[in-house]
Amino acid sequence: VALVGGGPGDPELITVQGKRLLAHADVVVADRLAPRELLEDLPAHVEVVDAAKIPYGRAATQEFINQTLIDRAKEGKFVVRLKGGDPYVFGRGFEELLACAEAGIPVTVVPGVTSAFGVPALAGVPVTHRGVAHEVVVVSGHVAPDDPRSLVDWSAIARLKGTVVLMMAVERAGAFAAALMEGRPGSTPVAVIQEGSTASQRVFRSTLDSLAADMEKWEVRPPAIIVVGPVAGIASANS
Amino acid sequence: VALVGGGPGDPELITVQGKRLLAHADVVVADRLAPRELLEDLPAHVEVVDAAKIPYGRAATQEFINQTLIDRAKEGKFVVRLKGGDPYVFGRGFEELLACAEAGIPVTVVPGVTSAFGVPALAGVPVTHRGVAHEVVVVSGHVAPDDPRSLVDWSAIARLKGTVVLMMAVERAGAFAAALMEGRPGSTPVAVIQEGSTASQRVFRSTLDSLAADMEKWEVRPPAIIVVGPVAGIASANS
Repeated sequence: VALVGGGPGDPELITVQGKRLLAHADVVVADRLAPRELLEDLPAHVEVVDAAKIPYGRAATQEFINQTLIDRAKEGKFVVRLKGGDPYVFGRGFEELLACAEAGIPVTVVPGVTSAFGVPALAGVPVTHRGVAHEVVVVSGHVAPDDPRSLVDWSAIARLKGTVVLMMAVERAGAFAAALMEGRPGSTPVAVIQEGSTASQRVFRSTLDSLAADMEKWEVRPPAIIVVGPVAGIASANS
Repeated sequence: VALVGGGPGDPELITVQGKRLLAHADVVVADRLAPRELLEDLPAHVEVVDAAKIPYGRAATQEFINQTLIDRAKEGKFVVRLKGGDPYVFGRGFEELLACAEAGIPVTVVPGVTSAFGVPALAGVPVTHRGVAHEVVVVSGHVAPDDPRSLVDWSAIARLKGTVVLMMAVERAGAFAAALMEGRPGSTPVAVIQEGSTASQRVFRSTLDSLAADMEKWEVRPPAIIVVGPVAGIASANS
């Protein structure tokens, strides 16, 4: 099994190694966010298991995927698990590696261009910039700041001075903006990039205090990346 | 000019787009950390300006590089600026883009696999893992925590519960460990990866309170990535 990061969406942003392994695959198990064009280019004899088409709940889907990787590998087939972005940046890649390892199946990991950094770059937003932001934090927005399941100390995140990249945060953008305003001014620049790196890319500029209203006005839909911090402002002036 | 991320070191971890643009380059201006094999594979007629061989100080080097990009582009040549990792993750990529933009030269940006995430992945350390780390912060270690030039609030970084990736931090690892121990226990797992993704890769495991002594004992030299947090521990148990 090869665990391959497919990059942020543009099919040319997969790595050379990832593309090479994909060309040798007998089976491709694709993520919902894996670049679609890479699947369309596969030869007809390749079996494609497309997570976007599995009609189950989320947990069941993950178990089904793990089992598919293991079953096909045990049949002697070369299986590529193709993910959007990087397998280890909120990609559950390590869970799949552990499942395979437990079943005695060796896994090759091929990192990908993470959407957290690649999507802003293609929209003209550098996640770090000398004299402006010397650190960048990437946070998952899959649970709200006040959710008891949250592992994130939002008051510490709010005190950071550099760049905050929010992923999977479209639905709760207002709550995250409010959490960040506990430590940062409401005028802090924000860039929102929907479907980054693809032909459907849309880029919006806002500020923390206007973010929730702006995103509703623009009807932003997932997948989108939200970049908070001064880098979103310098980009605005120069691109 | 194309600003291309070369990835963490392995020549196959450049993107397909990056490799394609490199194959069309008239001039390649390479970073000190750009994958060396990619330069060796270039046809003989390609002019290579290798920053690792420029005998100036750091600031002069950056100005020389900016000027080289602009001069060659104005001669009508297709210039690839090849960087290690991703151009915008402590890569000064946006500075070069701004310099080119000021000179009226259009720039294509091709993100790369950042060493901050790719190097740990290849050493068996996932920077995020469900139930363990839901955020990851990447910090530059080019100035000490108490340096007046520091833009980083280390007390806020120390309070984060997820993963901290320190880059360019080999020389001041002890100072950063001490800063992090203001908020995290000394037993927090640490992974140190020197020359990640290359044949010379070395991986060490430590804890915050032993890091400085361990790194001296192991004689760790740059380039190295330091990963702090529980993910460095789960990886240790399973790889």
